[in-house]
Amino acid sequence: MTKKQLLEAIEIEAKKYFVDASGCHDWTHVERVRALAGRIGKAEDADLHVLAAAALLHDVSRGEEMRKGGGFCHAEHGAEEARNILVRLGCEPDFIDRVTHCIRTHRKRGKNIPESLEAKILFDADKLDSLGAIGVGRAFLFAGMAGSKTLYTGNEKELAKHDKDYSYTNEDSVFLEYEKHLKHLKDRLLTKTGKTIARERSDFMKDFFTQFWKEVEGKC
Amino acid sequence: MTKKQLLEAIEIEAKKYFVDASGCHDWTHVERVRALAGRIGKAEDADLHVLAAAALLHDVSRGEEMRKGGGFCHAEHGAEEARNILVRLGCEPDFIDRVTHCIRTHRKRGKNIPESLEAKILFDADKLDSLGAIGVGRAFLFAGMAGSKTLYTGNEKELAKHDKDYSYTNEDSVFLEYEKHLKHLKDRLLTKTGKTIARERSDFMKDFFTQFWKEVEGKC
Repeated sequence: MTKKQLLEAIEIEAKKYFVDASGCHDWTHVERVRALAGRIGKAEDADLHVLAAAALLHDVSRGEEMRKGGGFCHAEHGAEEARNILVRLGCEPDFIDRVTHCIRTHRKRGKNIPESLEAKILFDADKLDSLGAIGVGRAFLFAGMAGSKTLYTGNEKELAKHDKDYSYTNEDSVFLEYEKHLKHLKDRLLTKTGKTIARERSDFMKDFFTQFWKEVEGKC
Repeated sequence: MTKKQLLEAIEIEAKKYFVDASGCHDWTHVERVRALAGRIGKAEDADLHVLAAAALLHDVSRGEEMRKGGGFCHAEHGAEEARNILVRLGCEPDFIDRVTHCIRTHRKRGKNIPESLEAKILFDADKLDSLGAIGVGRAFLFAGMAGSKTLYTGNEKELAKHDKDYSYTNEDSVFLEYEKHLKHLKDRLLTKTGKTIARERSDFMKDFFTQFWKEVEGKC
């Protein structure tokens, strides 16, 4: 099997996990992360084969996490799921270890810290999908899916100062998510290329909300 | 009762209809339409008192339309509902006629065509709330609320060529709504000031989707 054929086989396996997926983490998210990881990987001189396999497989256990809820980590379980797939496809142990390291650490939680260059790039590409125009679209779509009642409350800047979690309350909104999390995301990226793209997408998002609030007041 | 007091009383009455409203036509929509109508009204030298009253009351029957569905027109019923409110508040017949004309014709459907300057401005302000950054946010939020499965399908430009209605199907997406309707909305506005703001907001939306598709491909 050539490298291209292997990636095609991995893609077929990975896609099976996304039949019922919707919203912010559907198959289009995987495609975007793969594209972005490839771009960053080229600039950072990473192993593009490991990176493409890891990007394709990084969210295979997200559906299970959504169903099972708290305590289940889709990164840890996804790494094991991916290992099974790659063993079945006859991959080398070293390749499997390098791919599953990326998947296990792509959330950068607890002891699962991205150490390889490819793992750092997957982390960056995944985070970048929450920024820019895609980030805006995903945030509003998700808010609607989660039953958000309104576009904004007008209290966001005040509420963002506190540590309280307003998820699924009437105080929650996309702009609160932006003020609390999305506008700080650029500071968490790990690679030089990732940081550069994050700054550009973060600026786009900032300009979007500047226009948004001017329009709220009828000023433009 | 001064003009300011009357508008405050109208606002209290109008708000009662929005207790259970959510999403794209909640009370914040009314506030934005009022702000924008005021801005256009000043530039076009319109009667700002008629315009503010009409903006506050223009969607009072939208909740009933949502509950009752097809055949019920919130503009026609809203005009009658508004008439009852304004009579109760002791308004002059001429003022009531001018306000209810705006409300009845704010959708510009069938025989209900905006004739007065204030009616044309209300139509423009209402349409403008579907454009720009607010338009983007409303469209994605509404898609999520309506159960949309994905951010985009990639088939939008092709599907937009046909007249078929894809609402609530797996082919529907915000970008399809943009390609079919939102990008043409600027050509439907009625006042000079409304047209100028529409062009600006339409350009903003076009730039948003240009960035959106570049990001999909990982190009920025």
